[in-house]
Amino acid sequence: METADKVCIVEATEPANIVILGAGGDLTKRKLIPALIKMLRCGLLHPDSKIIGVFKDRSHQQWVDSLREGLNQYCTDIHLNETQWQAFSGMLKSVAGDLQEENTYQTLAATLENLHGKLNALFYCAVPPRWYTTIAAGLYNQGLADETHGYRRVVIEKPFGMDLPSAQALNHELQKLLDESQIYRIDHYLGKESVQNLLVYRFANSILEPLWNRNFIDHIQISAAESIGIEYRANYYEKAGALRDMIQSHLMQVMTLVAMEPPVEFTADAVRDEKIKVLRAVRSFAEAEISEQAVAAQYGAGTVQGEAVKAYVAEDEVSPDSVTETFAAVRFHIDNWRWQSVPFILWTGKRLPERVSEIVIRFRKPPFNLFDTHATPPRANSLIFRVHPDEGITLHMNAKKPGLTTDSQRMVMRAPYSENGDDVSDAYEVLLHDVLIGDATLFSRADEVEESWSIIEPLMEVWKDRISVERYRSGSWDVPGMERLFTDCVGGWHKPD
Amino acid sequence: METADKVCIVEATEPANIVILGAGGDLTKRKLIPALIKMLRCGLLHPDSKIIGVFKDRSHQQWVDSLREGLNQYCTDIHLNETQWQAFSGMLKSVAGDLQEENTYQTLAATLENLHGKLNALFYCAVPPRWYTTIAAGLYNQGLADETHGYRRVVIEKPFGMDLPSAQALNHELQKLLDESQIYRIDHYLGKESVQNLLVYRFANSILEPLWNRNFIDHIQISAAESIGIEYRANYYEKAGALRDMIQSHLMQVMTLVAMEPPVEFTADAVRDEKIKVLRAVRSFAEAEISEQAVAAQYGAGTVQGEAVKAYVAEDEVSPDSVTETFAAVRFHIDNWRWQSVPFILWTGKRLPERVSEIVIRFRKPPFNLFDTHATPPRANSLIFRVHPDEGITLHMNAKKPGLTTDSQRMVMRAPYSENGDDVSDAYEVLLHDVLIGDATLFSRADEVEESWSIIEPLMEVWKDRISVERYRSGSWDVPGMERLFTDCVGGWHKPD
Repeated sequence: METADKVCIVEATEPANIVILGAGGDLTKRKLIPALIKMLRCGLLHPDSKIIGVFKDRSHQQWVDSLREGLNQYCTDIHLNETQWQAFSGMLKSVAGDLQEENTYQTLAATLENLHGKLNALFYCAVPPRWYTTIAAGLYNQGLADETHGYRRVVIEKPFGMDLPSAQALNHELQKLLDESQIYRIDHYLGKESVQNLLVYRFANSILEPLWNRNFIDHIQISAAESIGIEYRANYYEKAGALRDMIQSHLMQVMTLVAMEPPVEFTADAVRDEKIKVLRAVRSFAEAEISEQAVAAQYGAGTVQGEAVKAYVAEDEVSPDSVTETFAAVRFHIDNWRWQSVPFILWTGKRLPERVSEIVIRFRKPPFNLFDTHATPPRANSLIFRVHPDEGITLHMNAKKPGLTTDSQRMVMRAPYSENGDDVSDAYEVLLHDVLIGDATLFSRADEVEESWSIIEPLMEVWKDRISVERYRSGSWDVPGMERLFTDCVGGWHKPD
Repeated sequence: METADKVCIVEATEPANIVILGAGGDLTKRKLIPALIKMLRCGLLHPDSKIIGVFKDRSHQQWVDSLREGLNQYCTDIHLNETQWQAFSGMLKSVAGDLQEENTYQTLAATLENLHGKLNALFYCAVPPRWYTTIAAGLYNQGLADETHGYRRVVIEKPFGMDLPSAQALNHELQKLLDESQIYRIDHYLGKESVQNLLVYRFANSILEPLWNRNFIDHIQISAAESIGIEYRANYYEKAGALRDMIQSHLMQVMTLVAMEPPVEFTADAVRDEKIKVLRAVRSFAEAEISEQAVAAQYGAGTVQGEAVKAYVAEDEVSPDSVTETFAAVRFHIDNWRWQSVPFILWTGKRLPERVSEIVIRFRKPPFNLFDTHATPPRANSLIFRVHPDEGITLHMNAKKPGLTTDSQRMVMRAPYSENGDDVSDAYEVLLHDVLIGDATLFSRADEVEESWSIIEPLMEVWKDRISVERYRSGSWDVPGMERLFTDCVGGWHKPD
């Protein structure tokens, strides 16, 4: 197999052993293996690296075959001929065993011992969160967390706890076994190009910084609308809800990137130091005002993109009297010099008309309308980062309506991301490469995770006692309470076009 | 003929008599008649209006025929069938006579007396400037400047004098015969959509005003590059040169629109009061620094858009030892709180590689490059108003290069004007309509004209004594002295893409 279909100018990586714990699952075949193949192709993964799957109840060959099937099924953009597949599958090793058993880790240690590039290892926990500490202990006990002869990095996926105490407990357990610098809390949302572009865009353009504050910005909306329902995740979702599932984790992370002060340098800790300062400045919710500051709702039956869908309470494994929210919106305030009195409204929901994720910076209106026309007055300017789909940046301005008047009309200045270069990288490629080069900028530090839980703790407290929840029709933007949440916001709720 | 092919939401006009003095010339058939036809079609010209041509040496029918020929030859976008043409030509009247003779104006007065809508009259001087005062006197003597029973507006085209004394003399003569409010000094450049859009864009968007000053703008470039030579205008051009022909007249007008403070209201005098303040704040040129602040050059032979062309000095009716500049660039400084130390560089030239006219707002660079990369550092942001061709606005920003780095690359946010609505109106339509409704916002007031002459007077003084001039090759951007003029400007000379 060719190692470089295209040239990527990036930091070269050393040979590494990528250990996937729980490699028999969906994540491995859908996301991790495709990402590793792409990384290998463009020189981001050293060809002397090995990929070691840890799983049980199947043979090495069955595992390899399932990966190839997954590739054919989910990754139509990857075309490997037989020779290329043979070359790639030659990098695959496996360790059979139960993650609860000590001797699984012994076998893993022995396997690593015999491999080229054995000094560096990345352990990817592709398992439910309840296994994280078990795995960390297993690695630790076999000396696999010891970095004397190479790096040892452990990647875990959210959720990092289900509330503040459980997050603290998880961090505490992990930090007894691993150094904080070895823990990579992955948020694939932050691996998306447009989220990363937000940072470059903010700090590589001189005209944004002067505008990026309470004097010129009216409010900010950060959204993740989904058209799908909860799919196969009822068990998790019933306990989590939209607030935990999307706002506490992904969207609050994005909020910190939008709101943070310019970091001293572009390094993991300098960036994370600024992010945590934002979280610490978030105003606490007083119990009495939560009903004014947050919206919870649950999808009823309806039609999404032409397809009739059932209500949340009618989904498999969901309690018929569930009050879990599938839509959540929260108005945050950041009490610092830059953001005082600028609402940050984060919202997410399932079974909405479209899947759209955006960051909307809504500026104030011009102080007065100079052009005395009969037509509509100019609208407030907006800068919109589209995270998904069609990643890109648009700027909504007002321009003269062509013709013999001074009427203004909306003018959308557009720069679709794909116009500006190569293929947009997949989030997992970006993040796995970051782990290999040890760049933790886009990963969450323990203090960030705990701080964000502590912010929404009062919301969760109030919400957990509710006995009913508002409903919205699947496939509709008509979510009770949302218009009210935006009453003092210029231009109101920005529903995707 | 239909009176409304499309609906224009504009101020309705009363019936008017449009008198074209010198109606036998090129301007009438190429520009004025086509503009009037278009105005009529979309309801901007009242159908009871009359168009009275004043000319000599031909019959009414010869004149009408020549207009129709001109339409077929120059205006392929106007399609009139026989019925439509008959309807339009029914609006045409003519007055035969010499503009130097009293009885021509008597005939004109008598003709107007007999027409419907006789109270309002617009007199368009489609003649060389030396006739302006003769015409004004002719009108005045017949009582045609008297506004007791309707408006009387006189439209003149640039040049308004050839220097400060001649401009003052012209204004003085006209103002003896007409009220300043009756004089419409037309600058077709200001009738262009994108020049007008500059005003709407500046004052209908809240995010521009905070950036629109010396704190964030490095410098401003206003350009009018032409690929043509002097064509049939040698006699005028030999005396005028690029400085008078484009910079004193058109480009300095644009500079005032870019630089002015927000006017109190969008009315002619409020806008012109702000424009004149800008001109009064322009720093005087000290004789010693003129060689540092201005560039003059003349085209030599070369190739423009594939065609071999001759040198300026080889053009018909140009003196072989002429030192007239066909390229001029001047660095202006505006000494006020907003613009102190921001150079405004106005440049124009003939026989350049393309015909491009732009307003480039070049912002300062980010104070430091946060992203420590091997790649090129971010470039300064630019906001570009394209006046010609492809009118529109672009914003040059830096964005993340897609892929696994934080390298930035130029991202051009674009809003072509034509995407945003109807056809772009022709400058003459815009300006004629403004005269009909009495809106003088886009016309020059006497004090503006004199002020702009007085600013460039020291330059003209120095340049008139020169005995040689730098040469540039036709079809090349390599104009001696231009790079030096931009040495302290971020990003340097913005040559059109």
